Amino acid sequence: MTSPVPHPGLADSAFLAAVRGEPVPHTPVWFMRQAGRSLPEYRKLREGIAMLDACMRPDTVVEITLQPVRRYGVDAAIFFSDIVLPLKAVGVDLDIVPGVGPVVARPVRTLEDVAAIPDLTPEHVDFVTESVRTLTGELGATPLIGFAGAPFTVASYLVEGGPSKEQALTKSLMFSQPEVWAALMDKIAQISAAYLQVQVAAGASAVQLFDSWAGSLTPTDYREHVMPWSQRVLASVTDVPRIHFGVGTSNLLGLMGDAGADVVGVDWRTPLSDGILRAGGRAVQGNLDPTLVFAPTELMTARADEIIAAGRAAPGHVFNLGHGVLPATDPDQLARLTDHVHAYPLD
Amino acid sequence: MTSPVPHPGLADSAFLAAVRGEPVPHTPVWFMRQAGRSLPEYRKLREGIAMLDACMRPDTVVEITLQPVRRYGVDAAIFFSDIVLPLKAVGVDLDIVPGVGPVVARPVRTLEDVAAIPDLTPEHVDFVTESVRTLTGELGATPLIGFAGAPFTVASYLVEGGPSKEQALTKSLMFSQPEVWAALMDKIAQISAAYLQVQVAAGASAVQLFDSWAGSLTPTDYREHVMPWSQRVLASVTDVPRIHFGVGTSNLLGLMGDAGADVVGVDWRTPLSDGILRAGGRAVQGNLDPTLVFAPTELMTARADEIIAAGRAAPGHVFNLGHGVLPATDPDQLARLTDHVHAYPLD
Repeated sequence: MTSPVPHPGLADSAFLAAVRGEPVPHTPVWFMRQAGRSLPEYRKLREGIAMLDACMRPDTVVEITLQPVRRYGVDAAIFFSDIVLPLKAVGVDLDIVPGVGPVVARPVRTLEDVAAIPDLTPEHVDFVTESVRTLTGELGATPLIGFAGAPFTVASYLVEGGPSKEQALTKSLMFSQPEVWAALMDKIAQISAAYLQVQVAAGASAVQLFDSWAGSLTPTDYREHVMPWSQRVLASVTDVPRIHFGVGTSNLLGLMGDAGADVVGVDWRTPLSDGILRAGGRAVQGNLDPTLVFAPTELMTARADEIIAAGRAAPGHVFNLGHGVLPATDPDQLARLTDHVHAYPLD
Repeated sequence: MTSPVPHPGLADSAFLAAVRGEPVPHTPVWFMRQAGRSLPEYRKLREGIAMLDACMRPDTVVEITLQPVRRYGVDAAIFFSDIVLPLKAVGVDLDIVPGVGPVVARPVRTLEDVAAIPDLTPEHVDFVTESVRTLTGELGATPLIGFAGAPFTVASYLVEGGPSKEQALTKSLMFSQPEVWAALMDKIAQISAAYLQVQVAAGASAVQLFDSWAGSLTPTDYREHVMPWSQRVLASVTDVPRIHFGVGTSNLLGLMGDAGADVVGVDWRTPLSDGILRAGGRAVQGNLDPTLVFAPTELMTARADEIIAAGRAAPGHVFNLGHGVLPATDPDQLARLTDHVHAYPLD
């Protein structure tokens, strides 16, 4: 089975034009976690289906990925998955516990633990290939963004055994056992790269590398202990634009761009104008505070206007929230925000 | 009972000299949360004593505050308390639940809820006055830093009803109900100001205003909805140096200084050299990653050296971690760090 022929309108889509830094028909917009718990149709579909099962069944992946595109008319779909899904696919014993997050049965702390994790091959994720092919057919001229966790963030789940506020064990391993750390990062970089390559081979138009917890690192530690592996992952998918995003990364935006990103995601803490300067001439994505959707519509749209205006200083700007959609978000408010961004006048 | 006569060496202490931007005998150092769970003598003393009880009994407050000064020989003591203690003292129904944090029985969401919270008078916190007086006597030439939570962070506990990752309800109230927000912030500013004034009147040599969660705000929202009240608190204690600290505040350091701080606390994410520039000519405090104490000693001290060297560009520099001591910290490692900072050569 070969990859589907791309829709003729895809290359000219607002999203792909913006990430290439070309003129756009309107400011493109999508929302991190647009597919998920804020949507009643998602909650209905997930009834009785565990999170990881929903990520591994093509029928649910396709439907969940499409739901926000249908509802909002956003300019891109994001492949429905989870940061730990590729680990699960290669056989790591883990689960996503509701109200907690990913829980790893046996945390990884030694070279033997790392060696026990298999490399990822396309056969591990047949369901991803099938889902992406179906999705690109359904999406037509709307780009699909592939998705993977960056090595540091994935490593933090493996080392801590679950979500962690401080990543103390992870950083302790990073500081104290550089050989184990390098082996672990090598392993995850292989898995994340292979996982993204599968999505691109099956038709994804762009990828986003999520380094959710990178913001807990100093620039020095990010540069020495993390960046080389994120760089390796990004360098493995050169055929499509690459977005690189983390939270609380004000001081890392330049490095995250230099790691090989075409687009630097900026969280809401950094004014977009500053983010553009720090991203070093790259396109940017962001960055409305996700809690601003709880504000009166006029305030939300006024802040969105400021962000769009600031975004004009970048070679390209993809409007987004500064982090994922919060579960309590009113979808009607996101619909209004989408329409508002689309209606914003071009220069 | 009048305030005790200050120890003759106090004014010349390294800590107070540094915050005034004067020459120091050595780089002063203390650690946020130096009193607490990382110390075996603390864990022993706390056996069978609930957190809030420990904060309200002069004997435990004094002993816990002194423990790290005795052990490490740090250059300042920090008054042992909790951010929600003044609320408890005026009668708000709350508790500190082990493993969770502060839990408020009836979250505050309306003008009536706010009006039901009494103002704080010195009589509410007699135990603070008594503790501080005893402490300043015991501490001699070592300064005692008073402590209070900033209005935004305290508000977040009251509105959310407990700790919260996103402060979504708090910011929702802030965006949507400005009158309720202003009333709540007025109330907390009064309480925090009065709480600090009590500590200063009883002999505290400096104060630190903790805005732990301010880093979740954009600079725009911080300036409009938070800064005026933090400013009011800081303006209420002009007789002693004021330190202003929050986590993840890279983009807020200038504003936090302008709010009336003499010293701006910098977390570990921001290189201290950048923090100094952003703090606008003020003294700074910080900023070793608290997880670096889990690294080999040589790596920890090498990073400390970089921070001390960078700190020389500020009018004054107080060495500290970039956030609180983590509970798993080895006290011997903090002892080595203290000695190392003290031995660092002056220019």
